[in-house]
Amino acid sequence: MSTCRILTLLTDFGLSDAYVGIMKGVIAAIAPQIHIIDLTHQIPPQNIAAARFNLMNAYPYFPEGTVHVAVVDPGVGGSRRAIALQLPTGFLVGPDNGLLDGVLSRYGHDPSVQAVDLNNPAYWRNACPSSTFHGRDIFAPVGAHLARGVSLQELGTAISVDSLVEFDIPDAQKTTTQITGYVQHIDHFGNVITNISGDEVRSLHWSVEVKHTQVPSRHTYGESAIGEMLALVGSHGWIEIAVNGGSAQARLHMGVRDVVTVYRVEKDTQSGNSL
Amino acid sequence: MSTCRILTLLTDFGLSDAYVGIMKGVIAAIAPQIHIIDLTHQIPPQNIAAARFNLMNAYPYFPEGTVHVAVVDPGVGGSRRAIALQLPTGFLVGPDNGLLDGVLSRYGHDPSVQAVDLNNPAYWRNACPSSTFHGRDIFAPVGAHLARGVSLQELGTAISVDSLVEFDIPDAQKTTTQITGYVQHIDHFGNVITNISGDEVRSLHWSVEVKHTQVPSRHTYGESAIGEMLALVGSHGWIEIAVNGGSAQARLHMGVRDVVTVYRVEKDTQSGNSL
Amino acid sequence: MSTCRILTLLTDFGLSDAYVGIMKGVIAAIAPQIHIIDLTHQIPPQNIAAARFNLMNAYPYFPEGTVHVAVVDPGVGGSRRAIALQLPTGFLVGPDNGLLDGVLSRYGHDPSVQAVDLNNPAYWRNACPSSTFHGRDIFAPVGAHLARGVSLQELGTAISVDSLVEFDIPDAQKTTTQITGYVQHIDHFGNVITNISGDEVRSLHWSVEVKHTQVPSRHTYGESAIGEMLALVGSHGWIEIAVNGGSAQARLHMGVRDVVTVYRVEKDTQSGNSL
Repeated sequence: MSTCRILTLLTDFGLSDAYVGIMKGVIAAIAPQIHIIDLTHQIPPQNIAAARFNLMNAYPYFPEGTVHVAVVDPGVGGSRRAIALQLPTGFLVGPDNGLLDGVLSRYGHDPSVQAVDLNNPAYWRNACPSSTFHGRDIFAPVGAHLARGVSLQELGTAISVDSLVEFDIPDAQKTTTQITGYVQHIDHFGNVITNISGDEVRSLHWSVEVKHTQVPSRHTYGESAIGEMLALVGSHGWIEIAVNGGSAQARLHMGVRDVVTVYRVEKDTQSGNSL
Repeated sequence: MSTCRILTLLTDFGLSDAYVGIMKGVIAAIAPQIHIIDLTHQIPPQNIAAARFNLMNAYPYFPEGTVHVAVVDPGVGGSRRAIALQLPTGFLVGPDNGLLDGVLSRYGHDPSVQAVDLNNPAYWRNACPSSTFHGRDIFAPVGAHLARGVSLQELGTAISVDSLVEFDIPDAQKTTTQITGYVQHIDHFGNVITNISGDEVRSLHWSVEVKHTQVPSRHTYGESAIGEMLALVGSHGWIEIAVNGGSAQARLHMGVRDVVTVYRVEKDTQSGNSL
Repeated sequence: MSTCRILTLLTDFGLSDAYVGIMKGVIAAIAPQIHIIDLTHQIPPQNIAAARFNLMNAYPYFPEGTVHVAVVDPGVGGSRRAIALQLPTGFLVGPDNGLLDGVLSRYGHDPSVQAVDLNNPAYWRNACPSSTFHGRDIFAPVGAHLARGVSLQELGTAISVDSLVEFDIPDAQKTTTQITGYVQHIDHFGNVITNISGDEVRSLHWSVEVKHTQVPSRHTYGESAIGEMLALVGSHGWIEIAVNGGSAQARLHMGVRDVVTVYRVEKDTQSGNSL
């Protein structure tokens, strides 16, 4: 097999301690040729929404066969499953808590997607994992074995994709006059990012309503004044609400799962109209 | 030799400047095939205890032959020696200030351990190192040469392992009724980590006394209430004192080298008993 | 070609999100064998001076042929050019905003230096780059193609090196009695770093005047008292003004482009004299 498989890591472990370095040592001991790429280790502690969002956005940019190991794991040591997924273009490894659900939503109806419960200790670091550091003891070694060519089926018992824990946020819903979506992430700039795809508003004039506030849409920050609130399609492809030079979160006090509505506006009249 | 040797870096240089990047450039210029893994660069400035603790915990997870370069070096430019060590399973490179002493303590009595004073400028970046950045001028190039197969003996004059500077903290002492240990590190969560191995209390009922305070032992955080102080065996294998959802350091105001005592308790009576 | 080309990244994207990870995914998809080294991603947002300074200092330590991709890009989406440069010892890729000017100043009169406007979309990620993330859509893929051996000329239209945007800071000027230089960077310790080379004062006795304040020169921090202001030659080779254990910036309130003057002093009389 290729000697240049890629393995990515995403955690909430931070960079102050050697936890991430230890995971890399475990990986290197199993698969020394693997290139390891950090997505981020500064997910806010136990923030599954932020982890899910970053993994979902980064996934499409990696080459086929990349193994993504993601560990934001408030349920470690409890009864949540440890899982691995094989998608048409790569692998996911992590806890079954909704973290992997964003990537999966793009492939969920593809019958080739396979999932396993990581219950084969032969691919763990040892048969007695710690109750607190499955990143080191289960997820890193399993990811390294996948990257060196072990098949998904060897890692544990096959489970149904439908049985996986979903991130509990509804899909955006589109009617003839509006799209109703939900906040799926608030980034560290305070941008409020919805789960409404920018594809929905391509070549439209549109605006957003959140918490009874109308927010005009812009193509770039440069089209708005400093301090002005705007809605735009972020570089990740989702509609987001921002404040030029400031924090939309500080202005709006919104949280994950809050409702955001997109309306079509006529350029001259600014009246609502069908999408 | 192998093209997939690993070299790790641990420093207090932070990630805001290119200092760590410069060390990697020096390494890549000498040994371009080497995989470089960061342990952490966010050791608190000049905190040898934290550096020693993180290196000691990470070391066992890396494959045989890994070269660990560690630079927390308050004495740079002074008379402290620059050293390299060959252990049965890997190499250490850094200042002779106690930083490497944690790893060494696991192998110190192994007669195969060898140490050299890095006084051969042929393996430095140049013959006139700066007085402030031995990471770039001595430790990184020496580490890279080791990783590409240069023998330890070529790097400088052999010195006795007994002559190396020790980190000045006593070993934990065990009697029939208690174990007296010492704080060896306080992590950035405020967990107070002792130098008493968790192996000492396996399958026992035990509690801890610090500063005249009794702290009950738990297997996991989940067994304690939010805000409660507990003692447990951390994922690194040492007994530590923590506050669930808080900082034991803020509660106890302890420092490195402070005394911690472990007692055996009878489950029902909670009275002390022999270990 | 070699399978161990190096590509470095320097940005102001921070490490909290997966932006840098996404750039690495794009690179790995084009050139999976490339070793990627981070210079830093914690340049203060849109601080071209800090980015230029860190890139300039790191550049000389990397092996020949290294590709340096630097993205601090306040003008993204506007009319600033995206450029790549071939120097005698490596490649630079980034926005044409002065960021690359520090490295270039060392080679600017070398007739072999070549520059191109990155206007060939065949080497972008796709023909429609986002207006906000050229790091992902242009600079990372172009850097990866350079690293795998694509020639500079294929990447776009040749442009004159003289046409590149310069960082607007005058060169230091030397007379028989003094050197007048300028602050080119203030690091995160508050050290005020000039564009006067330490080579100018080698084996001299000298002092510095800033804002009508005389600052004595020292060889090391250890020669000054805690809290004392001193001038010294930093490990990067430039004369800097520092406060031992403190921040010169907090004391002096200086900014990039402020004037700093170096005088020769007689050791005994401390009177000025010719350089």
